[in-house]
Parts: sequence; structure tokens; C-alpha cells
Amino acid sequence: MPVLPQGYTIRRLEPQDYDGVVETLKVLTVVGNVTRSQFEETLNYWKETTVKIGVHSIPAYNPHVIVDDSDRVVATGTVFIERKIIRDCGLVGHVEDIAVAKDQQGKQLGLLLIQHLTKLAHDQGAYKVILDCDDKNVGFYEKCGYRRCGVEMDHRL
Amino acid sequence: MPVLPQGYTIRRLEPQDYDGVVETLKVLTVVGNVTRSQFEETLNYWKETTVKIGVHSIPAYNPHVIVDDSDRVVATGTVFIERKIIRDCGLVGHVEDIAVAKDQQGKQLGLLLIQHLTKLAHDQGAYKVILDCDDKNVGFYEKCGYRRCGVEMDHRL
Repeated sequence: MPVLPQGYTIRRLEPQDYDGVVETLKVLTVVGNVTRSQFEETLNYWKETTVKIGVHSIPAYNPHVIVDDSDRVVATGTVFIERKIIRDCGLVGHVEDIAVAKDQQGKQLGLLLIQHLTKLAHDQGAYKVILDCDDKNVGFYEKCGYRRCGVEMDHRL
Repeated sequence: MPVLPQGYTIRRLEPQDYDGVVETLKVLTVVGNVTRSQFEETLNYWKETTVKIGVHSIPAYNPHVIVDDSDRVVATGTVFIERKIIRDCGLVGHVEDIAVAKDQQGKQLGLLLIQHLTKLAHDQGAYKVILDCDDKNVGFYEKCGYRRCGVEMDHRL
């Protein structure tokens, strides 16, 4: 079982992670000009958005970071919970936007983060957790316990 | 351009669609024992869940049905809107749970519903709309304007 390097921790994303998260996400894709205030507004939206099931309420968005011993963000990723009608009004976790800082590769941080988010979604009641990835990353996600189950398609204007 | 058959309409899913939606979703997968009260509770949750961007607010869940001239559900599907940090705090539409009643195949209802949900998500500001499908349905979604862009993977307990 892989473990976090000494001094590293996984925790929920917080407003003070602005610089680290924006920088880390650039490894993955175009981030754009996200200001600190837009970042904080998004975090607030994520925080107040819940999935209600009867009297229970769980967070819909679960953004997390791995930080090193100086609280610097070294990896980020999220899982959000969708509520459906099918499967007895089942919940599905969607893992999104996994990124590991370039100088932190090889420490299995991606795998540890995926395992953490996947367990979190199942603990919240998700009957399955899904994610979309490039063909070249299938092997990595198989090591995380995922299996290939379909094709992702997109539509852009 | 395909058009809806005479008397058919696309509209947002309503509580009175319980029987028709549950029956139609069975074409797709296991629905389970979803009671009318669970169905209504889910609809209420979907209705009150919004995506906030500054002072604007849009529905996060956009469940729709196609009904025939007697208001019977003949197709159902949804698109929900995820708010991200990447792409300038961009929005992504997720098309989910598309099902067409067995006796209604061949009328292009699936295509019309997908086009409607895709346009709706873009109108709400989504920079892309994604969906996951079986390999055998890739051709159908290509006709809807989608293109293959990745692999879907899942994790189940």
C-alpha cells in the first residue's frame, strides 16, 4: 500500500490554496485568468452546494489537495456527487481535474489522491465512481482500481 | 434537420411524469423501487440546486422529457452543469441517462433530445458538453455533433 511522503497531508481545498492550485492545474489544461476573488467565489459555491437525501445532506463538491510539510499544494483533484433517479435514486461520484505538480511526479500522489476521493464518494453513498481520461492514462487508473467501461464524447461550439 | 413528430413536445420533467419516466428509464438500466415520493423528492432537489456565477443563477440539473400528444413520456434525459476552476472558472455540461421508450424508436427522438440538452447547456454558458456511452453508440452521438475524446472508467465496490 503506497503512503504519503513524510509531512504530506490530504485535506479539503481552502481559500489560501489559490496560488498553489492554479499553478498545479496548469499541468493539466488551460486555467485562464482566474483571480483570487473568482477562486474564492467558486470555493464558496462548492461549499454551499449539497446533495440532500431525506434529512441527510452531504457536500456535492469535494475538492481536495495534497500539501507538503510547508503547506504547499503538490496535487489537486475533486469528486462531485450527482443524484439520479436510476439505481434507486442512486448517487454517482464524478472524479474531475486531477493534477500533480511537475516536480512531484513519481511519489504516487495521483494514486493516493484518487483512492482518497474514490473512498470519500463511496462513503457518502455513491454506488459507483466514474472518471474520464486519455487513452494513455488507462493503465494508471487501472492501478487505482478503475476499469474501462465506456467512451467519453464531447461537444464544443 | 429532424423535427419532432406532430403533437410531440420537449419540456422540463414534472412530478406527473413519474410513471412514464420510471418506465422509460428501464430501457436504459436498473431503476429499482423508486416510489412516487422519492421521485418527487429528487425532482425537488434538482429544482432547488443552482449554479451561481456572480449575481446570476442557473439550474444545475436540467431533466427533460419528450411527451406525445397525450402527454405520455416517450423519451427522457438530463444535463447537469458542473462549475470548475479551470478554463476561467468554466462550466461543463454532463448529459446523463438518455432513454427512449421501446415503441418509439426510429423517430429520432434521442437525437432531438440530445440536441436540445446540448444547446441548453451551451446557452447556459458551458464551454463544452460531455457524455459517456457504450462503444456501439459512438456513431449515434457523432450524428448528434459529438466526437470521441477519451475513455470512461468506473469504480464499484
